[in-house]
Amino acid sequence: MAQFINARDALVTESIDGTLRASNGKLARLDGYPHIKVVVRADWDKSKVALVSGGGSGHEPSHAGFVGQGMLTAAVCGDVFASPPADAVLAGILAVTGDAGCLLIVKNYTGDRLNFGLAAERAREMGHKVSMVVVDDDVSLPENPQARGVAGTLFVHKIAGALAEAGEDLETVTAAAKRVIGDVVSIGMSLDTCTVPGAEKEDRITRGMAELGLGIHGEPGVEQVEFEGAREAMAIVVDKLAAGLGQGNHVALLNNLGSATPLEMAVLAEELCRSRIGERIAHLIGPAPLMTSLDMHGFSLSLLPTDAAQIKALQSVVAPVAWPGCLDVAEVVVHPMPSGLEPPKYTASEDREIRALVDAGCQALVGSEAELNALDAKSGDGDTGSTVATAARALIAALDRLPLSDPALLCRAIGTEIGQTMGGSSGVLLAIFFAAAGDAAEGGDLVSALKAGLDRIREVGGANPGDRTMIDALAPALAALPDGLDASAVAARGGADATAKITRAKAGRASYVSAENLAGHNDPGAEAVALLFESLAVR
Amino acid sequence: MAQFINARDALVTESIDGTLRASNGKLARLDGYPHIKVVVRADWDKSKVALVSGGGSGHEPSHAGFVGQGMLTAAVCGDVFASPPADAVLAGILAVTGDAGCLLIVKNYTGDRLNFGLAAERAREMGHKVSMVVVDDDVSLPENPQARGVAGTLFVHKIAGALAEAGEDLETVTAAAKRVIGDVVSIGMSLDTCTVPGAEKEDRITRGMAELGLGIHGEPGVEQVEFEGAREAMAIVVDKLAAGLGQGNHVALLNNLGSATPLEMAVLAEELCRSRIGERIAHLIGPAPLMTSLDMHGFSLSLLPTDAAQIKALQSVVAPVAWPGCLDVAEVVVHPMPSGLEPPKYTASEDREIRALVDAGCQALVGSEAELNALDAKSGDGDTGSTVATAARALIAALDRLPLSDPALLCRAIGTEIGQTMGGSSGVLLAIFFAAAGDAAEGGDLVSALKAGLDRIREVGGANPGDRTMIDALAPALAALPDGLDASAVAARGGADATAKITRAKAGRASYVSAENLAGHNDPGAEAVALLFESLAVR
Repeated sequence: MAQFINARDALVTESIDGTLRASNGKLARLDGYPHIKVVVRADWDKSKVALVSGGGSGHEPSHAGFVGQGMLTAAVCGDVFASPPADAVLAGILAVTGDAGCLLIVKNYTGDRLNFGLAAERAREMGHKVSMVVVDDDVSLPENPQARGVAGTLFVHKIAGALAEAGEDLETVTAAAKRVIGDVVSIGMSLDTCTVPGAEKEDRITRGMAELGLGIHGEPGVEQVEFEGAREAMAIVVDKLAAGLGQGNHVALLNNLGSATPLEMAVLAEELCRSRIGERIAHLIGPAPLMTSLDMHGFSLSLLPTDAAQIKALQSVVAPVAWPGCLDVAEVVVHPMPSGLEPPKYTASEDREIRALVDAGCQALVGSEAELNALDAKSGDGDTGSTVATAARALIAALDRLPLSDPALLCRAIGTEIGQTMGGSSGVLLAIFFAAAGDAAEGGDLVSALKAGLDRIREVGGANPGDRTMIDALAPALAALPDGLDASAVAARGGADATAKITRAKAGRASYVSAENLAGHNDPGAEAVALLFESLAVR
Repeated sequence: MAQFINARDALVTESIDGTLRASNGKLARLDGYPHIKVVVRADWDKSKVALVSGGGSGHEPSHAGFVGQGMLTAAVCGDVFASPPADAVLAGILAVTGDAGCLLIVKNYTGDRLNFGLAAERAREMGHKVSMVVVDDDVSLPENPQARGVAGTLFVHKIAGALAEAGEDLETVTAAAKRVIGDVVSIGMSLDTCTVPGAEKEDRITRGMAELGLGIHGEPGVEQVEFEGAREAMAIVVDKLAAGLGQGNHVALLNNLGSATPLEMAVLAEELCRSRIGERIAHLIGPAPLMTSLDMHGFSLSLLPTDAAQIKALQSVVAPVAWPGCLDVAEVVVHPMPSGLEPPKYTASEDREIRALVDAGCQALVGSEAELNALDAKSGDGDTGSTVATAARALIAALDRLPLSDPALLCRAIGTEIGQTMGGSSGVLLAIFFAAAGDAAEGGDLVSALKAGLDRIREVGGANPGDRTMIDALAPALAALPDGLDASAVAARGGADATAKITRAKAGRASYVSAENLAGHNDPGAEAVALLFESLAVR
């Protein structure tokens, strides 16, 4: 599959340079491209214990994304899924290590152990204080003496980083890192493999199955399990980890392995909280991409028993924006619904003239149902007449409840009735029209108020005159209204008939219809408006 | 494709609850599930202008992820890619709007315009001050009067959010939002479509092509273009945006549409900086997932002309962790390589006894090349003899340069020579062995120093006695060394011969070989050690 890269052998260096550009000047790199790819804190003064991590690339934001105050001092980057050579690691160590010494945080893969190990020896030989810890948090093969290092590594980065930042000495920082490594457990699950740049994606996972216990280099998981949904998936993962859990509460790190969507990750967070260990999850890091495996559609869960000092270290503020924080897990806070959502009630009032006008208009629209449906059938789904008639019938039935003597209230009430009875975009638009007109009618004249309604639906609906919508009749009708209903009806008819010549609709559903299917007949919405004004004029 | 969800109709509500749990108690929701899905700031006191946004789900972290101090006050969430109903929007407005009023930030889709528009009318009718802006930043169809709202919406959230947080009134906040909308331009490109939950993924994009000008709902892009790599892709996107650019410098927002890897996004950031408008990109937001389209493998670029007040607003600190900050684009800072990477030089010194010992051992290993290769061929790739002999020949050639009279320096020098001449894991391990032994030999006896070297390679390599490695001969040889070289040779031979009975290797390459292929012959590494000690003993 194609990817947004250039030449494959320049992928990591170009990516690092892009990362540096977006680092606000807080990150720098050593001048060792392409062989030596080391990202360092630009502001480092060697006054405290340095933390150096790294390994193959493809796990971003690990590790360069966690270089910064409070976490790593340097990240030594290999090519994708390949350990960096020992001299690159040595360059990283030498670039950042001062009198306080340096801790190497290494994930348990042979290449990383050897290259970081050799670099450590060389640096010691040169007189530097260097200690090294190897993270092996993966529990997927309990009998494997060489468990892999996966996302639990982040706990080490953060806790050791906080101690180093606080000025603790190398022995203290190293001991804290080793304690985390002894306590943390992780396991991953994925629904699909990852896409290694330049290689075809492997189609390995059977449909309906998930891989459990996978590493972060695209290697197959320890087993395939039936995938029944997020809840069952989290239950399986929790079961695997539960055996290794310490007493009491835990911090969970929920890691996106690559391309699980935020929606899925949030569902998994919810399922973790609802799981059988949910009550023991007191703090949560993520869900977030922390130790990815390129674009793998999976997640991993890491658990660490809580300890006041460790929580303090996990919650200290750091510079790297990729660190999502370590949050207290909260119950879902639910606020009561606000009042005012029930449809507003109006006190009925009488105005015989207005009653007759509304009744006549509605009766005319009910009477035009078949005609408007037929017109709509030529360019749409043939329901304009029925949609309009349904709302008109409802208004007729509501006449005794309407505040007929108050134009502002009446407009609002009509808007509410239409909003509840007339479906589709037209129903919402007319509800907005009458609601806005009602607002404007308060203290203003009705003609201006109706024009305000028109302005609002043009704004909200995005349609202009000439776009072949009901506005093509409504706009001229309202413009002519000061001259009386007769003038208004003539204007509406002219506007409606003109729509037959508009063969390119710019708004509404007709914008998807070809010109041939539009030419020669009126827009049904504009026609309905014309029929309405004509019915009012003849009274 | 399977996804980490449960029932599809519970996806959004479960996801919101998971998001709330991980919000440190800063987010709450209204009690309107499942119909009304509104996320609100838990700490909101209605004392300032409220900002309400939302729309269909599937764009996370938009919009719930941007609810918090300094950005949105509420997010109204629809189902995946579906506008929320008007009464949900109204509930959101009513829940957060106080005397200062409320700004609705709406992306330009008909459903959103209508439902937010109707809710605005209803809220105004109830006496609330409500204004609404519609974001239409997509430039993919320049002649389309209804351009879509895409990731440029984030500029509006952030700038309006900063002004609202600063206590500005609704008119000021609305005017600022409209100004952003007038100025911002965006376009997206993707290499693959997105996976809508419960639907099959559409295979729409031809191999070797990319879609340009796509929305955020899986709809096809405006055109397919040839995909030649990240550089050309960014050039196409920049060309499309350049036409609409204002004068002077710009802020770029580089948005991950879903499943582009961080590696790819960083390469795209680098290409943006190198592009023909690169010098005008003064600030960068991202690369980060900001307005996603589920798991779409694509990106979008949004540009806004810089203005001091807007930059200040974009750079103000906010609560939502999903906001990646607006950073000054920096040149790549390159630090010089540290000194000390060149191999250490040693002053030659003479010790005829040691010279003879080293020479004899190396000659024996050179002489065993064929024998060791043959042994390795039974369970490996048959090169152990050559690997060892190459290093031995190099050591013989280096004899005149070695500090033979100083055991500590000699160990280190041998380690350096081996590290440079012997390939594979064995080379690195032996380099570590001698380097660590050299360190320990300083002020200590040689036997203890060699044992320190052994401890270090057991630690780094992760192999223990019994794992069928060279350690099975080296450990007993060093243990017997205080009793003399003869005892040591006997012990090494015993250890090496015992490996023929170890049919389950736990470390190194032989751990991948079946028991039948291991039984009955010695591990070649252990055999080499035995041959070495035997050669030293017979002298």
